[in-house]
Amino acid sequence: MESCLLLDAGSGGRASQRLVKQCFLQQFANPLLERMDDAALLADLKGALAMSTDSYTVTPLFFAGGSIGSLAVHGTVNDVSMLGARPRYLSCGFILEEGLPLETLEQVVADMAVASRKANVPIVTGDTKVVPRGACDKMFINTTGIGEIFTANPPSGHNARPGDAVLVSGAVGDHGLTIMGSREGLSFLTDVATDSAPLNHMVAEILAAVGDVHVLRDPTRGGLATTLTEIAEQSQVGIELDETSIPVHEAVRNGCSFLGLDPLYLANEGKCICILPEAKAADALAAMRRSPYGQEAVCVGRVVAGRPQVTLRTRIGGQRLLGMLEGAQLPRIC
Amino acid sequence: MESCLLLDAGSGGRASQRLVKQCFLQQFANPLLERMDDAALLADLKGALAMSTDSYTVTPLFFAGGSIGSLAVHGTVNDVSMLGARPRYLSCGFILEEGLPLETLEQVVADMAVASRKANVPIVTGDTKVVPRGACDKMFINTTGIGEIFTANPPSGHNARPGDAVLVSGAVGDHGLTIMGSREGLSFLTDVATDSAPLNHMVAEILAAVGDVHVLRDPTRGGLATTLTEIAEQSQVGIELDETSIPVHEAVRNGCSFLGLDPLYLANEGKCICILPEAKAADALAAMRRSPYGQEAVCVGRVVAGRPQVTLRTRIGGQRLLGMLEGAQLPRIC
Repeated sequence: MESCLLLDAGSGGRASQRLVKQCFLQQFANPLLERMDDAALLADLKGALAMSTDSYTVTPLFFAGGSIGSLAVHGTVNDVSMLGARPRYLSCGFILEEGLPLETLEQVVADMAVASRKANVPIVTGDTKVVPRGACDKMFINTTGIGEIFTANPPSGHNARPGDAVLVSGAVGDHGLTIMGSREGLSFLTDVATDSAPLNHMVAEILAAVGDVHVLRDPTRGGLATTLTEIAEQSQVGIELDETSIPVHEAVRNGCSFLGLDPLYLANEGKCICILPEAKAADALAAMRRSPYGQEAVCVGRVVAGRPQVTLRTRIGGQRLLGMLEGAQLPRIC
Repeated sequence: MESCLLLDAGSGGRASQRLVKQCFLQQFANPLLERMDDAALLADLKGALAMSTDSYTVTPLFFAGGSIGSLAVHGTVNDVSMLGARPRYLSCGFILEEGLPLETLEQVVADMAVASRKANVPIVTGDTKVVPRGACDKMFINTTGIGEIFTANPPSGHNARPGDAVLVSGAVGDHGLTIMGSREGLSFLTDVATDSAPLNHMVAEILAAVGDVHVLRDPTRGGLATTLTEIAEQSQVGIELDETSIPVHEAVRNGCSFLGLDPLYLANEGKCICILPEAKAADALAAMRRSPYGQEAVCVGRVVAGRPQVTLRTRIGGQRLLGMLEGAQLPRIC
């Protein structure tokens, strides 16, 4: 193969076939993908399904703790999981820029393959487009996921109820600050890495431990504050948070303070919010902590009757209203 | 709203929400999408499923007979249909360039909505990313489709058998030449328009009329010749075509002859290849012709034992070997 991607690799002809066989089929190897028909045949899905899609445009392509490839698998696996579903299959669509070093593509595809195996969710169908130099910045990836819902009452942003506890599976802000640090070459951020991780096994643990929960959400773009505000509005409830209980890694806290950023608005890619009746909170936290990705899980607040908004009880005893993110802290974060 | 897309419309915050509500939810209106959770809940899918994904990067965004919006719906609806499936749900991921006129986005989204209603396949979950000016060329769309397989033996490129007839649902080359004409402003191509159309209803008619078929494929990138070569290789059979029987519209024939293009290698977006036992061919053709998109359906050749290749019996009685497309006739055709 050439060392850089040529336009004809997206033509649908012989060059496309070579790329698919030598790169994608080898890395993603599974019998469903290898059929190479126009669609993948999924014979064994049962019951109600969850479907979710995300396009990944993150820059740089590689950053501390991950890459656009691992992110593209984790992000969609997590979105499917948030409906109380077991993610089963992923599709994958590449948009590649002519001239992209094949080594770069291969590394990203290898990262996807590792992430897909770790999450135990195979990539079963795909598509590759190559656009001329300058028509896209290096590469974009879309993944779409399908999962089986295994809870009688799927969680939803609409289901938060007064009296519920608000749990977070770990520290917030790591992903957002990592991307910012990698992009700007901020050397004092060397202790920060993305939290990007597959949450499907942890979600299964939570639901096995406590049965139905009211809300599951992963606070990605817009961060914890934006996601909780969305939930407050969808459920028409208030949410009260205790600032002191929200876990933020020290390196993230310091980096944010230096850069004037708020970790509550920074993206996370390996955290979930779980809202459920207070009586179930301890069991849910214990389930989260059994996962390698939920070691720092804590209760950060409660759902109350009242105006659909999120208030933060600050460290010094004040109250601060958290709204949705206005403007863009950072484009191309995921 | 502003008249051009700003970066913060992709932030996941308030501006994203405005765009989603004012543009996507209004046009794609359906109860599944309106839940706005991380994934869509699909409660009513039965049996084996087909899943297919495609990213659309066509330029220009609008062309005779269609747009990137209608194409993004038709293309994925058709890929799902080619597994003998009834497409049921679509996801949709936008990658948008900062500064894109909102009017352009709205027109594309309106085209998608019309195409989705016409095909009767709702868009149930989505994602929007906005990248800085210059990081993508105007807009890319990914759609992923899920369908219910309603045939006992799903068609596959691996199933062509000697003795089968090779049918095509209509004239070839229209889409490819249309894109080329729109891009280059070729005024003598005014009689050419894309064939982009949803084929799900036609496929249902065919399968209702004749039961199982061996192969269904839509000859998109690489055209009829490349797709048939792929099938010949997957099934390890020969395919013989009669040049005189392959329908090509006169305007396409003239345009190709002028530009030095081969219509057999040009993309189609509303045609299918159907390969099935010769005894069923007449009924399948009749079923195709009952569809508005299959009026010109004909038998163009047959499957034979022998080397896995496609040969064309030419107008003057010679034989020409058709291979796969080598190189790229035209990038960003779909």
